Amino acid sequence: MSKTTEKSHQNAQKNGQDGFVTAGILVIGNEILSGRTKDTNSGYIAEALTAHGITVREIQVIPDIIDLIEARIRDYAARFDYVFTCGGIGPTHDDKTAEAFARAFDTELELNAEAHGILIRHYGADRMNKGREKMAWMPKGAGLIENSVSAAPGIHMKNVFGMAGVPDIMKAMLGVIIPTLRAGLLVHSRTIGCDDIPESMIAPDLERIENAYAGLDVGSYPRFKDGVAGLNIVIRSTNTDILDKAEAEIRDAAEKIRLVAQK
Amino acid sequence: MSKTTEKSHQNAQKNGQDGFVTAGILVIGNEILSGRTKDTNSGYIAEALTAHGITVREIQVIPDIIDLIEARIRDYAARFDYVFTCGGIGPTHDDKTAEAFARAFDTELELNAEAHGILIRHYGADRMNKGREKMAWMPKGAGLIENSVSAAPGIHMKNVFGMAGVPDIMKAMLGVIIPTLRAGLLVHSRTIGCDDIPESMIAPDLERIENAYAGLDVGSYPRFKDGVAGLNIVIRSTNTDILDKAEAEIRDAAEKIRLVAQK
Repeated sequence: MSKTTEKSHQNAQKNGQDGFVTAGILVIGNEILSGRTKDTNSGYIAEALTAHGITVREIQVIPDIIDLIEARIRDYAARFDYVFTCGGIGPTHDDKTAEAFARAFDTELELNAEAHGILIRHYGADRMNKGREKMAWMPKGAGLIENSVSAAPGIHMKNVFGMAGVPDIMKAMLGVIIPTLRAGLLVHSRTIGCDDIPESMIAPDLERIENAYAGLDVGSYPRFKDGVAGLNIVIRSTNTDILDKAEAEIRDAAEKIRLVAQK
Repeated sequence: MSKTTEKSHQNAQKNGQDGFVTAGILVIGNEILSGRTKDTNSGYIAEALTAHGITVREIQVIPDIIDLIEARIRDYAARFDYVFTCGGIGPTHDDKTAEAFARAFDTELELNAEAHGILIRHYGADRMNKGREKMAWMPKGAGLIENSVSAAPGIHMKNVFGMAGVPDIMKAMLGVIIPTLRAGLLVHSRTIGCDDIPESMIAPDLERIENAYAGLDVGSYPRFKDGVAGLNIVIRSTNTDILDKAEAEIRDAAEKIRLVAQK
């Protein structure tokens, strides 16, 4: 990351002062921390937000502890333009996100008439029970996030969106949310495959090229799989002219390294 | 999570006062936050630590910004018994983890003779370059973590382990680290499949059963995939007698719900 970009990351965490719109993602659930369930939600959300012009600054996975969830919602809501939580909005005792939302916004839960109506229509009045009703207890003032998969809505309070943890439901909710979000500058990226070049040989060029362009982010991603090495250089910028120039310079640098290696 | 467990989580974050040994995981890298690369490391580490009797309390994904990495290492090192970082220890300019380690431990980088020797033996003295040498610049006082895949060692400072971000290298390093770690109480878990029962119907039983046993954690994990619903109840405890009893009670409760449904 160039010094300019690093500075902009640190100074402009919020409010798009530099044209960036930022987000934080909170994944809530003991099952992720135990390794039993592998989180795929945060990567999916990050990719979708990036494509919409929203820059994800941080992701956290935290346990089902109300005080912790509350504290992290407060922290992220203050530091980022948007916050997305997944998990903890179901009918059982380990679903604590609604309560944490209420506390984080200094309010309390109430039986939300709209959410209650949605659940009654979905399940039938005679098949409602305490658990299903629990999903209609929302923080006062909450907006609802439509759930086209299993009816029970998500929670929207100011700049924070509380989504389900079940991936198919989360995806349906995110699909409803994203068109309503303010888009920032779109960060474009290109990947330059350099599998035949040792990362360390092109390292000085990458640093030089990154520093030559304000707002250019050059990442170097080696991989080793089954003993085979590879390297991808990823360049990112909101400015495609800069990407064109940086890509050409990196390809030139790689070519020079190849020519030297052949001698 | 039972009130007892929740309390123990909050009070005994460190030092295994209650027999738990705790850990935090820091995933470092812009490529994860952009969604381009999907993090699989944290889930792998969480599962391996859980199996060793170490409880992962929190996971964070943060960008390649030295100040942020430093701050989060300080925070996690103070709050958890062990901290694991992945990413940012390679030869390029975007690899900032060693510098962040040095700052977090109030020291500076030095050319580590042992690490330098490892790299010279691996690459050959005539094929060393600035990038490869960079990987031998370690915080003063660092221990090395063996890298059987690509030689460049990881960084060990007090209770913090800096591993590579490339999954195969991270796995090799973690395999070396884990046998050296103090194990806490092993948390056993069992999964009870309840695909034919609506989550909301068994919710009151789950809460009652969790509250009946100190240190029992009952999680309810619904899934919806391609329109098909399913439910797993996961019970976790360090005490297998408690698991036996809780499992029997949950199976009884599920059976009663099935019998009522058939009427």
